[in-house]
Amino acid sequence: MAPAPTLARGSVGSVETRYVDLPQPVRLDCGRELHPVRVAYETYGALSPGKDNAILVCHALSGDAHAAGFSKSSSSSARDGFGAEERDGSAGKGLGWWDGMIGPGKAFDTDRFFVVCTNLLGGCGGTTGPSSLDPVTGQPYGSSFPVITVADMVRTERAFLNVLGIERLAAVAGGSLGGMQALEWAILFPDQVDAVVSIASTHALHPQGVAWNSIARDAIMRDPAWQGGHYYGTGRAPDAGMGVARMVGHITYLSAPALHDRFGRRLQFADDIRYTLTEPEFEVESYLRHQADSFVRRFDANTYLYTSRALTYFDLSRQHGGGSLTRALEGVSARTLLIAFSSDWLYPPSASQEIEEALSTVGKPVELHVIEAPYGHDCFLLEEARQTPIIRQFLAEERPS
Amino acid sequence: MAPAPTLARGSVGSVETRYVDLPQPVRLDCGRELHPVRVAYETYGALSPGKDNAILVCHALSGDAHAAGFSKSSSSSARDGFGAEERDGSAGKGLGWWDGMIGPGKAFDTDRFFVVCTNLLGGCGGTTGPSSLDPVTGQPYGSSFPVITVADMVRTERAFLNVLGIERLAAVAGGSLGGMQALEWAILFPDQVDAVVSIASTHALHPQGVAWNSIARDAIMRDPAWQGGHYYGTGRAPDAGMGVARMVGHITYLSAPALHDRFGRRLQFADDIRYTLTEPEFEVESYLRHQADSFVRRFDANTYLYTSRALTYFDLSRQHGGGSLTRALEGVSARTLLIAFSSDWLYPPSASQEIEEALSTVGKPVELHVIEAPYGHDCFLLEEARQTPIIRQFLAEERPS
Repeated sequence: MAPAPTLARGSVGSVETRYVDLPQPVRLDCGRELHPVRVAYETYGALSPGKDNAILVCHALSGDAHAAGFSKSSSSSARDGFGAEERDGSAGKGLGWWDGMIGPGKAFDTDRFFVVCTNLLGGCGGTTGPSSLDPVTGQPYGSSFPVITVADMVRTERAFLNVLGIERLAAVAGGSLGGMQALEWAILFPDQVDAVVSIASTHALHPQGVAWNSIARDAIMRDPAWQGGHYYGTGRAPDAGMGVARMVGHITYLSAPALHDRFGRRLQFADDIRYTLTEPEFEVESYLRHQADSFVRRFDANTYLYTSRALTYFDLSRQHGGGSLTRALEGVSARTLLIAFSSDWLYPPSASQEIEEALSTVGKPVELHVIEAPYGHDCFLLEEARQTPIIRQFLAEERPS
Repeated sequence: MAPAPTLARGSVGSVETRYVDLPQPVRLDCGRELHPVRVAYETYGALSPGKDNAILVCHALSGDAHAAGFSKSSSSSARDGFGAEERDGSAGKGLGWWDGMIGPGKAFDTDRFFVVCTNLLGGCGGTTGPSSLDPVTGQPYGSSFPVITVADMVRTERAFLNVLGIERLAAVAGGSLGGMQALEWAILFPDQVDAVVSIASTHALHPQGVAWNSIARDAIMRDPAWQGGHYYGTGRAPDAGMGVARMVGHITYLSAPALHDRFGRRLQFADDIRYTLTEPEFEVESYLRHQADSFVRRFDANTYLYTSRALTYFDLSRQHGGGSLTRALEGVSARTLLIAFSSDWLYPPSASQEIEEALSTVGKPVELHVIEAPYGHDCFLLEEARQTPIIRQFLAEERPS
């Protein structure tokens, strides 16, 4: 057997976020139409002459269009989790949130694929969202922005790809909320998606996840600086509440053992406790506040609200199957790759198993890989080395090199 | 074998919270002294002439002195959890938080024992706490109340029992923070405790628990109405922040499967989602807001802060063992009963197993029962029927009928 070739695992290099204004209004599940809609996006690799090598990458709650490479304009990281945070520290700021997965020789190999990532509808990274101007009032939408769904995000992505002249996707991929979008694509546009890669995701968030998201949103909306959602231009923003929301989210993205290994019960000051209510006493307390502060600087609270609402609404059985997941998925024609992580208690492997079973029941090609890894939900951002061969193999089955 | 006698499982009846002013200042771990200190308490059953049948019951974070019976003065429940909430609904308001466990023929049998429950130091149920008047200023302490520890609570309980003339305890018992107090008693006053019953508790909260408590406290302190802790008399209180704190706490007291069984993803309005940010869409969202609102009405935010701080500080190895749990426990002379619940992820059975191993290593009598039950941490309030024979048997070993 010949030795395996050494893969060039390089960077896509310096990148820039670009913008497209959609020519048509986006029709939303709530019945409203949104117009104008601008979409922020980045691309990596080259579109083939036949335009048949495009992969759409969809981001999670706190992400943006900057998925890979080094952005001079982006000084903040859209990554979740302490592993990612560490990596930023060593690799410099401005690195895309899935840089380890997208690039030459990587899981989403830009030597072969044209990878596109957009900021989702309702976002705060350049795509139209609650901080955008409402053309009717000339003021930012704030909480008069329509309540959107994952399907609305997907329809926006579909309309955006039309502008690029891309009719079919070789794959649509994402983790968490991004994985929800990938599944929604396969249902809404079954003839336009060859493959789905849904990682650390679900067909419907479980009730405890609904609860965490509800608490996070309440923390923002109970902050008087939220001002009913119309805080833009007032000089005040619900930073305090969004900090709490972020801390809640952050703990749900990690596993209890990971927190134990990383922080234990180590005190912030090695000598002893200092009998203070207001200052951090444990390292984990200080870490959480740091996470809250850095998130508040880069993210818009209303986008958090709308995106959290959309991901809790997401429920393929209710939306498409009259209560049956099998029925919801029976129109899918894409091949599906599901990856879940053993320690992920927010998007547990059981949900991916349910998707796998439902797809198998209706005779659709599907494979599920449950990776034993300790970091919880954040694994989808951290466990690149173990996801890469699975994804490369899956994508190679359709497009052999 | 004769049939087991039918137990009269009755109520302690109508009860009243009483108050004692301690004659001496309480010396605190932080180095300060607290004076005056008032202690609110209730008693159930009769103290024996030899004063040797007293059991001290210690409450958890949100509890008070009203542990059993029906209180005409108390219109609110100090119980955590949805099971408890339900039971209140059927049994009427004003029932003590552990009424199912304390009474004639119950786990803590008032036909045999004199059961005493005090509101803990720092509480808001009648014992001196941050809402009490600081004698130096004539104003409520607010956040100038000293930061207290579980050991400070126990020293206060010791001083209070002196006033009642009770030198020894047949047992000290409690769940959660109450179980911490029971363990602390056995270490601080080894010659004065015959038996410890520590339920759903730990020798030191794990880092994820530290994190949840930190987030809950931050939610309160970030509420502008907290006003640095000096909100008494201002007409404003950090209700919004404490509501968030309570919602976070509440979810950690329950298990994910329990939430699934109780609420699933059922919508608040059966027809469909209503595309609203601000109103509850899922039943679990509505439930959480109800929990927050009812807690805010009955509990003081500063007491929440101080009590949460104390229970995160609690760490028997650090406090008493120079880092070794075994060393911390080697002076214990009481028999110890530990009960843990399989689904409790906030105070998991593993912590009780560590206590059991440490006590066994130093040759102390200890028994651990892990009860398979689905409700999470709240089981200590809910699983009365399964705890009762274990506790009765354990207490009978010392005092046969």
